[in-house]
Amino acid sequence: MDEKKLTPKAENYSEWYNQLVQRAELADYAPVRGCMVVRPYGWSLWENIQATLDQRFKATGHVNAAFPLFIPMSFMEKEKEHVEGFSPELAVVTIGGGSELEEPLIVRPTSETIIGHMYAKWIQSYRDLPVLINQWANVVRWEMRTRLFLRTLEFYWQEGHTAHATAEEAEAETLQMLDVYTDFAINEAAVPVIPGCKSESEKFAGAVRSYTIEAMMGDKKALQAGTSHNLGQNFAKAFDIQYLDENNTLQYCWTTSWGLSTRFIGAIIMTHGDDQGLVLPPRLAPIQVVIVPIFRKDEEQTLVMAAVERVKHELSAFRVKVDDRTEVTPGFKFNEWELRGVPLRLEIGPKDVANHTVALARRDIPGREGKSFVSQEGIADTVSSILEAIQINMLVKATQFRDENIHQPQNYEEFKEIIAADGWCYVWWKQSVENEARVKEDTRATLRCLPLEQPGGKGRCIFSGEETTEKAYFARAY
Amino acid sequence: MDEKKLTPKAENYSEWYNQLVQRAELADYAPVRGCMVVRPYGWSLWENIQATLDQRFKATGHVNAAFPLFIPMSFMEKEKEHVEGFSPELAVVTIGGGSELEEPLIVRPTSETIIGHMYAKWIQSYRDLPVLINQWANVVRWEMRTRLFLRTLEFYWQEGHTAHATAEEAEAETLQMLDVYTDFAINEAAVPVIPGCKSESEKFAGAVRSYTIEAMMGDKKALQAGTSHNLGQNFAKAFDIQYLDENNTLQYCWTTSWGLSTRFIGAIIMTHGDDQGLVLPPRLAPIQVVIVPIFRKDEEQTLVMAAVERVKHELSAFRVKVDDRTEVTPGFKFNEWELRGVPLRLEIGPKDVANHTVALARRDIPGREGKSFVSQEGIADTVSSILEAIQINMLVKATQFRDENIHQPQNYEEFKEIIAADGWCYVWWKQSVENEARVKEDTRATLRCLPLEQPGGKGRCIFSGEETTEKAYFARAY
Repeated sequence: MDEKKLTPKAENYSEWYNQLVQRAELADYAPVRGCMVVRPYGWSLWENIQATLDQRFKATGHVNAAFPLFIPMSFMEKEKEHVEGFSPELAVVTIGGGSELEEPLIVRPTSETIIGHMYAKWIQSYRDLPVLINQWANVVRWEMRTRLFLRTLEFYWQEGHTAHATAEEAEAETLQMLDVYTDFAINEAAVPVIPGCKSESEKFAGAVRSYTIEAMMGDKKALQAGTSHNLGQNFAKAFDIQYLDENNTLQYCWTTSWGLSTRFIGAIIMTHGDDQGLVLPPRLAPIQVVIVPIFRKDEEQTLVMAAVERVKHELSAFRVKVDDRTEVTPGFKFNEWELRGVPLRLEIGPKDVANHTVALARRDIPGREGKSFVSQEGIADTVSSILEAIQINMLVKATQFRDENIHQPQNYEEFKEIIAADGWCYVWWKQSVENEARVKEDTRATLRCLPLEQPGGKGRCIFSGEETTEKAYFARAY
Repeated sequence: MDEKKLTPKAENYSEWYNQLVQRAELADYAPVRGCMVVRPYGWSLWENIQATLDQRFKATGHVNAAFPLFIPMSFMEKEKEHVEGFSPELAVVTIGGGSELEEPLIVRPTSETIIGHMYAKWIQSYRDLPVLINQWANVVRWEMRTRLFLRTLEFYWQEGHTAHATAEEAEAETLQMLDVYTDFAINEAAVPVIPGCKSESEKFAGAVRSYTIEAMMGDKKALQAGTSHNLGQNFAKAFDIQYLDENNTLQYCWTTSWGLSTRFIGAIIMTHGDDQGLVLPPRLAPIQVVIVPIFRKDEEQTLVMAAVERVKHELSAFRVKVDDRTEVTPGFKFNEWELRGVPLRLEIGPKDVANHTVALARRDIPGREGKSFVSQEGIADTVSSILEAIQINMLVKATQFRDENIHQPQNYEEFKEIIAADGWCYVWWKQSVENEARVKEDTRATLRCLPLEQPGGKGRCIFSGEETTEKAYFARAY
């Protein structure tokens, strides 16, 4: 651990982020440009994300499988928009076992093509449908500007790929998975995302319609935190995914895909982090409670450690770490666990032993206000309700921050001022690829989403003045 | 599901294996030569293997992380034996983002080099040791002759990589992890492996000493099912993994690595499978119990399905599948679930409803002997003890088969006869790289391991006649 203070967020947000990720030992740079090493603390956070998402996937009828890393180059070319979208970002294997390959292999940037190929083989009849498969995998996209977790050459994600008999079922699946992501983000990560539809220019290469959950980071930039795509029959036609229906007629399937990646760790860091470091939501934190014993003399140590062990035992339902290092001071430990975002710290010293108490410090409320003394009696219940309170408080704070920074400009001049000050704009929007491009050119803001929840009624497009029934969010984004 | 019978094991073992893997929907061939798709049923088996191993790793103090897929070519060249061992098998990325790369990247065949590089950066002092990290990952080795699960270009595994302050600690770690693998194989997979040490010619490229668990397949060939390597200071010196000891002197670390892969699924298939298909050990089976309702008329259906639901509810502690398809016959279902190796089948028909009974069929005991009728009363306890009995019986059967096929020839002529008939030889052996090569040339058998458990005493080497204190296993192997 590096003892230096983090660069304050207000001074240099991007520097703050980079320092935090490395000093909290979430991730490190790999020797290959743009690749990362996810360190044990970061991976443990990802494992908690995986566990809770996987449970939701299985509860909605999905199963896991594993499809190959390598995809024949020719597969990519079968879906026109798909290859256009991904070909600038491909890593290509040209040599295998010492020889030049006849057909180069690409390292998967996403798996619609190879999974489409297998589905064509597996699906024969309507009885085989729906196919509801997910995989937890690594993918590679040759990005030029990279940032740990947010954009790396290799990243980790889950990608769900489903095939259905009807357009309606495919759309329902796409929305169901968006809903799963929304629920996960809000209730597990305390990240108040806005679910919505992408515009034509922002949708996935090869999709009919892309949905997204959009989050606001601490610097007010938007971050796309998960996506769910209705692929229509585009991939089914490119890969011949067909089935015999009940009337024995050959039909093309309707497919979907949806993914959430290690990028989400970036969303957690930037939604909740402060100048002291990470602030992790209790439900996902690798360590929920850290216990720091405090003593000076040997006889104190014995008494204090006995109380610490007793309390730790009481807290066996939680993820608890006892920091019993003797080579560093309690103050050093406080800073370290604050940097690492542990939601709740317990301190136990000789006075606490005498009084049968424990000193608590909440990570989400800095300074005195977050501190209290509680009885060792019923400590498990106390910790349980405080962790729950922290989880809720984090969501409330993040939601307030988000809502304070969403504005409703009355005209395009105001729109530009808000974006220039890094706010989000929530505006009436008449869909137009050209106008969206002009807004982007003027302001560097993109259309983040047309939210699922619409106010109803009509208004005039902020840019064109045309009448429209839809509102959209615009913001600068990661 | 394919209704045709499997080719019997005795007729063509390899054909039996290939058919079984595909028809049981464990895996399928990918469109890229030598790559596989692990289908949901196979992946679910792997997930159960992962869960139980991961628990053991964590219980022994290890944590998970994720290191990059791509390794700079120059890294491989830093450890001489390592590069010699792996360079013929490498997949090489030469193009990224549309441009030729300055330094080609290899797709990891194993991660000692890149992890060594990171450890050199992370480890400063004796206080940082030991480092005990594992990763669950995909790796690529450009194999020429491939077989689903047993040898594929891409496969899935876990690789543990640890760094220690002393040679003794590294050796203890290496043996501890071998012990974890042995315990897992015997007690979870019912695969009676023999733990031992590899000879000089069979050890891992770059290791000081390699340990292995060796299993006997149904065709009596040996399969290396997991390995644990003491790397000495070879990688520490190649990658400068150094620490300051308590006297402030710079020392090289001692490192280990250990891995177990999806190959183990091949070991389970070939240890337990029979002519009807897979036989899965209850502790790892994706489906432990299948319930097949049996009825003809509509009024029967209602009664039977009510009983089925009741029994299913009672069995909520187990992984249960109710096969309620109406388009196929019960007989078809029996065959299918036998093919897929479900340990226990329950049948419930109108008579069972009337008698408050359930018909049971054990997968490990074919025919009448494996069938019985039991009361619906206390069905959870009944199922629990039968699953336990199946688990034990599978281990006993596999151990008997193994022991019947291990022979102790008195001279090299007998040795050759036994190997020609596909048996294993357990013989006194005086270690010699040259003699081992000659045995391999004569018989195609390799030295599988020098078992940890040695008989003691002395004997004369089966090949050279020299006096020796060690015994070894020889066999033809996958």
